[in-house]
Amino acid sequence: MQYPAPIAKLIDSYMKLPGIGAKTATRLAFYTLNMKEEDVTDFAKALISVKRDLHFCEICGNITEEKSCDICRNPNRDQSTILVVEETKDVMSLEKVREYKGLYHVLHGVLSPMDGTGPDDLNIASLIKRLHNNEVEEVIIATNATTDGEATAMYLSRLIKPSGIKVTRLAHGLSVGSDIEYADEITLLKAVEGRTEL
Amino acid sequence: MQYPAPIAKLIDSYMKLPGIGAKTATRLAFYTLNMKEEDVTDFAKALISVKRDLHFCEICGNITEEKSCDICRNPNRDQSTILVVEETKDVMSLEKVREYKGLYHVLHGVLSPMDGTGPDDLNIASLIKRLHNNEVEEVIIATNATTDGEATAMYLSRLIKPSGIKVTRLAHGLSVGSDIEYADEITLLKAVEGRTEL
Repeated sequence: MQYPAPIAKLIDSYMKLPGIGAKTATRLAFYTLNMKEEDVTDFAKALISVKRDLHFCEICGNITEEKSCDICRNPNRDQSTILVVEETKDVMSLEKVREYKGLYHVLHGVLSPMDGTGPDDLNIASLIKRLHNNEVEEVIIATNATTDGEATAMYLSRLIKPSGIKVTRLAHGLSVGSDIEYADEITLLKAVEGRTEL
Repeated sequence: MQYPAPIAKLIDSYMKLPGIGAKTATRLAFYTLNMKEEDVTDFAKALISVKRDLHFCEICGNITEEKSCDICRNPNRDQSTILVVEETKDVMSLEKVREYKGLYHVLHGVLSPMDGTGPDDLNIASLIKRLHNNEVEEVIIATNATTDGEATAMYLSRLIKPSGIKVTRLAHGLSVGSDIEYADEITLLKAVEGRTEL
């Protein structure tokens, strides 16, 4: 006996999500069957809405419901600093800290020769265009500390530095609250290299 | 900064699923943002369809797109045996074995004094009605081996036995391929009690 078509289709859809295999997808599908009608309708509407109502900000590439995002439209943000991240969710993570007051730029990926992602596949051209604005004094590169992230940081740094703009990179080192015993070697190396005076 | 409304709503919806917390929900929502338009639309349609197109079989309580399910409508199934399970997904699990050829009955839960679930909240009345059909010779109770599952099995057994119908329970014992070393005490006890002659 096969699952009835509607539930089989829902299992297939759940399986397209990352980290969800056949067993979990089946469990979620049967759970959905017993959910409140209203909650399921809201779920379906939210899925459609995310694809239909959200666009990338035409200035920085962040997600927004408008033409440009809240941050780019906010005149109180420091217009002299641009922080470059890989993905839109990184913007949200940094905003939660409530410390950085400048602007952002979302690359939508990293340079990756293995995956065939080159500079033209990323949101780099529009970053360079933004730098022609004389207000920008510093570009902070906050790509992840992976091989591809580091390579992208180096690439951007070489691209931007000739124009005289300061290029910085987020500090790497031990996580706050972590044990030296459990830190990996590269992180420890970065922590020693980036040591600060007390 | 808050997430744009469409993504915040989708995060809320993902969080209503079992075993998905705020972090995973956020990851899934951003993943959805980058999914193919078509896949997201299919996902939304599947959600709606599961609530709209699936009903409980009016005979056994299994899920179906028709008035009665494939199994109840199949004249080749052994009409003399009814296997009682807690949930519709248990029917699918048993059907995968391709060994049992009788009918099913889905209770949609178990008796649970703690949660306030009594006999009237379960699909029991329709089971008793089915037994008035003289064809039924055996009822196999396949509720789970939990306290509530065992109590439900005892309750059904006492309810059905006076009518002269044979009532059986699925065997409990060691899982195939499992180590005695790691089996819990209750399972070992059941395995000893239910030992068979070689």
